[in-house]
Amino acid sequence: MTADDSFRSSDSTRHARPLRHVRVAHLTEPLALELGGELSELRVAYETYGQLSPERDNAVLICHAISGDSHVAAHDPGDDPGWWDALVGPGKSIDTDRLFVICPNILGGCRGTTGPASPNPATRRPWGASFPAVTVGDMVSAHLRLLDHLGIERLRAAVGGSLGGHQVLELATRAGGRLAGAIALATSPRLTAQALAFDVVGRNAILRDPHYAEENGEEGGPGPVVGLALARMLGHITYLSREAMMERFGARRLAPRELQTAFENKFSVGSYLAYQGEKFVERFDANSYVTLSMAMDLFDLGPTRKELEERLGASRCRWLVVSFSSDWLFPSFQSREIVDALLRARRPVSYCEVTSRCGHDGFLLEDDLDRYGALVRGFLDRLAEEAPHEDAPPTVRPRPTHMLGPERLDVERIVGLIEPGSSVLDVGCGSGDLLARLARHGCTRRVGLEIDEREIVRCVQRGLDVVHADLEHGLACFGDGEFDAVVLSQTLQAARDVEALLAEMLRVGRRCVVSFPNAAFERHRRTLAEEGRAPVDTSLGPFRWYDTPNIRSLSILDFEEFCVEQGIRIERRIALDTGAGRVVEEDPNRHADVAVFVIRRAEAPDGPGAAPLAGRR
Amino acid sequence: MTADDSFRSSDSTRHARPLRHVRVAHLTEPLALELGGELSELRVAYETYGQLSPERDNAVLICHAISGDSHVAAHDPGDDPGWWDALVGPGKSIDTDRLFVICPNILGGCRGTTGPASPNPATRRPWGASFPAVTVGDMVSAHLRLLDHLGIERLRAAVGGSLGGHQVLELATRAGGRLAGAIALATSPRLTAQALAFDVVGRNAILRDPHYAEENGEEGGPGPVVGLALARMLGHITYLSREAMMERFGARRLAPRELQTAFENKFSVGSYLAYQGEKFVERFDANSYVTLSMAMDLFDLGPTRKELEERLGASRCRWLVVSFSSDWLFPSFQSREIVDALLRARRPVSYCEVTSRCGHDGFLLEDDLDRYGALVRGFLDRLAEEAPHEDAPPTVRPRPTHMLGPERLDVERIVGLIEPGSSVLDVGCGSGDLLARLARHGCTRRVGLEIDEREIVRCVQRGLDVVHADLEHGLACFGDGEFDAVVLSQTLQAARDVEALLAEMLRVGRRCVVSFPNAAFERHRRTLAEEGRAPVDTSLGPFRWYDTPNIRSLSILDFEEFCVEQGIRIERRIALDTGAGRVVEEDPNRHADVAVFVIRRAEAPDGPGAAPLAGRR
Repeated sequence: MTADDSFRSSDSTRHARPLRHVRVAHLTEPLALELGGELSELRVAYETYGQLSPERDNAVLICHAISGDSHVAAHDPGDDPGWWDALVGPGKSIDTDRLFVICPNILGGCRGTTGPASPNPATRRPWGASFPAVTVGDMVSAHLRLLDHLGIERLRAAVGGSLGGHQVLELATRAGGRLAGAIALATSPRLTAQALAFDVVGRNAILRDPHYAEENGEEGGPGPVVGLALARMLGHITYLSREAMMERFGARRLAPRELQTAFENKFSVGSYLAYQGEKFVERFDANSYVTLSMAMDLFDLGPTRKELEERLGASRCRWLVVSFSSDWLFPSFQSREIVDALLRARRPVSYCEVTSRCGHDGFLLEDDLDRYGALVRGFLDRLAEEAPHEDAPPTVRPRPTHMLGPERLDVERIVGLIEPGSSVLDVGCGSGDLLARLARHGCTRRVGLEIDEREIVRCVQRGLDVVHADLEHGLACFGDGEFDAVVLSQTLQAARDVEALLAEMLRVGRRCVVSFPNAAFERHRRTLAEEGRAPVDTSLGPFRWYDTPNIRSLSILDFEEFCVEQGIRIERRIALDTGAGRVVEEDPNRHADVAVFVIRRAEAPDGPGAAPLAGRR
Repeated sequence: MTADDSFRSSDSTRHARPLRHVRVAHLTEPLALELGGELSELRVAYETYGQLSPERDNAVLICHAISGDSHVAAHDPGDDPGWWDALVGPGKSIDTDRLFVICPNILGGCRGTTGPASPNPATRRPWGASFPAVTVGDMVSAHLRLLDHLGIERLRAAVGGSLGGHQVLELATRAGGRLAGAIALATSPRLTAQALAFDVVGRNAILRDPHYAEENGEEGGPGPVVGLALARMLGHITYLSREAMMERFGARRLAPRELQTAFENKFSVGSYLAYQGEKFVERFDANSYVTLSMAMDLFDLGPTRKELEERLGASRCRWLVVSFSSDWLFPSFQSREIVDALLRARRPVSYCEVTSRCGHDGFLLEDDLDRYGALVRGFLDRLAEEAPHEDAPPTVRPRPTHMLGPERLDVERIVGLIEPGSSVLDVGCGSGDLLARLARHGCTRRVGLEIDEREIVRCVQRGLDVVHADLEHGLACFGDGEFDAVVLSQTLQAARDVEALLAEMLRVGRRCVVSFPNAAFERHRRTLAEEGRAPVDTSLGPFRWYDTPNIRSLSILDFEEFCVEQGIRIERRIALDTGAGRVVEEDPNRHADVAVFVIRRAEAPDGPGAAPLAGRR
């Protein structure tokens, strides 16, 4: 090992010794395969961590990715490292002091579960390339058989990344009653054409290796070691981000590793990859690689929007979906496809795109655990609870939704405007104060949108459903009139495209509640007219003209005129003097510093109109 | 051919017939190679297009990329398509009615120029794998020999993309006197570690193909056709953007092409790639591929910032650098590295990142010609001229820099504030009105920064140097005090981070000229105080509170107070009433709608101070 080996990757800590903690379930009932044929018997190698509770309600199934196995974590300090020690263990995000973790080697793998290296009962020789094609669905069938074998009726959660995430998607949509929560990490409804293309090249490198036939039942040859190493080298490139590769190999690009290989002795990055490729050949079976990569390539949870929504609508669990910003193999927009389909199907989901430099490997590494690990832990913690958790962790910095001081005058006002039993979308929900309050208020469906990762973590820790979203990208995932109320609390003045945002809110909400600072507040008028300074709203903090996050200035009158022009009906207005902590009745456009409006589309049939509020200006 | 073949790519229109217009230069002087050894003779196959002018001053050298050749364009309607028909031909961006185009096949290639398939004079058999390693520098040496042979002393320009761009970089920095302009497209100072890694995998697929030895001098075998096809398939993935692949193959991912191949018959994208791979094998030599890909991998114009600046500082031409937004193989930040080094070396350069969905292939395709082709044509048109072109094409939409109406009161005022002979940076230069005016004014160095692609095209068409830049990313490429003056004309109010932007301007400019609309203009005061509406500056256009591009509101007084706080010295202020077309002397913070300030860092030693202008508010 040279210093270069310290470069972290999903494959850098793998063991070669036999694993001490593996158990094997012999499941004798035949398994019919989705693409035809059957396996007359099934062996599933698995490891467990922690203790199953007497109520049998703390089991978490971890589904591994293409090159993983049952050894998700070290069992004790003397044990081999696991592939997910970063997340799994006593006191960690997936806390084996409290949870009972089960990690099976997947069907088609090569670490003890039935796969190409297993004996074909008909010939008593290894299946090799004649092993039947399996699907992600078949892998999940094997998981379910193992759960039956272990007497686990219902999982606390299923967790997996990449191909492991595909298994979670399949399990949750096919066996909704068997899990309370699903955590889908760095995954997708199907591979991109680009990811599929890389697999085609890698698979061809193996299948067209002249030594491939040797693993196909013949003895004595080396097997397709070149093809498998090439496939692994190629795969490895796709698991890393460009930034991570440049940081690691950019400076000394012509400095080859001391550990040179037959594949490469010139470039640093080449010798690293070649080392990874050659190491992989020692521990992995080429036919398993072909089998698993084909299963991944064939996976498609739903080829159309509608089918994806129907499929995910069949789930009965809560969802946590996490993507990594620099993951270009399973890019974030694919996680958003899953999330959008869940939202359309009105299933409870939280989503975060974790800012990461680690690429697809992000879900395996420690770098982003402050957000990513906290999301997983927070989600698992709250799965057992019914109601959102009231105690919000302290916020890091002031946020628009908190701008009205500790009394939260606007939050209480907004809650008072919403009927119990309503469904509510909170656009720019911050750490979820309003959502938590609406839960107590009896609102049935509560969805938050938020752009700040740390606020999303706090929402998830409180058991709230929040989706990472940039408001400028609209609310396209929601249907017309899907929510009884859409709330935009103290965010309008920071919106780039006001018309588009309000139009979208009015489309998806039967009513909208909008609050904003009033630019025509008396103090602001004096600031401009008498002092000659541009007024700045300071309720958010001590902002100046050059650092305020507010990019738009509007008065109550401006907003009312806008509503008239745009055909928006104003149902109700509340003018507040938040400094005095009171509602303003007289000349609100002069005396109120904040206004709360309830609006709806003019063509909407019911609800009272209202005379303009800012009559006296 | 099925319908699938219509998918455009760099490889979709290639010919297999012998080319009718190729000429071969036999250059008998030995060529010493950079990595050792020599070629005792050199053959260069090339094609020409158009007529060399009597002054011999209209020659353009086109350098092809890894799989290209001398046939850059069809010579007549009956000719085979060229690889760059999109850009090269009569009346096209590289206009063969006016320019004399020379396109040589590169050293190490396999279309007539000396390469691995050429006979080794020592053995009279093809070099094969024993062909010596060549560099981009060697390719350029061959180009220079060809130019000597053709009697071309000085090129109008050298043009190339990808590996062709590497040749342009090498040529312009090594033989500065031989070209007036350099156009570097979709290229880089060196490959990213990721791009290098793909090459390592592709090269290994060839070198470890058991049939590789057959091309190594042995006869009769098929050669490394599998390895070469795999390398080409992999390369092809990297030439396309993810979006382009999804558009093409996403909908019918499981529909294989009718034209199935031994490599793939299941997935649409796979059979497309396999077809490309197999087609490539028919026309390309595996040893040429290895030779050229290694030359590209070894290319490094300057491994450090300093070396890159020194290297590019040796050039004597004007530069046009173009990148494509979806190109992930030669990402835009690498073109910016070239541009930044040129700027640091004070060489004249224009740069544009063309918004494109086509990936690395963008430079070969027609999709983005409205910007990309216009840039190339505009740059070539102005290369022969000394002074910037006065006639600006009409602008498409109002821009902040044009906001003061046809009289351009602020432009004339700003020009009057700048000494002839100064160097000037115009931050947010629009279509270059001020830059063109400053050229007439006698300013020696003029650099514009602009975010809008179409404005950049217009600047280049006028012969102005403009760099595509987002102001929020700062002026890091410029040195302390590099410019006599930095201008920010009517852009401050649209800046996100005012403090950082002004600090950077004050760092790189010995003086800064800043103009902005005055929020405390009397009419605005009345609008707020008397009408109760938030005032909106409308000099840019009929904007409202909800659609104005101005995100900050400031008065003359606000700006003066800001300068005091930040330790900025105000040298001069001009207050304008642009409606009345006059300078305001009395109570400017009330009577001026626009202010122009000349500022500098307070610690800067010379220059007069000035009493605050807005004394009466």
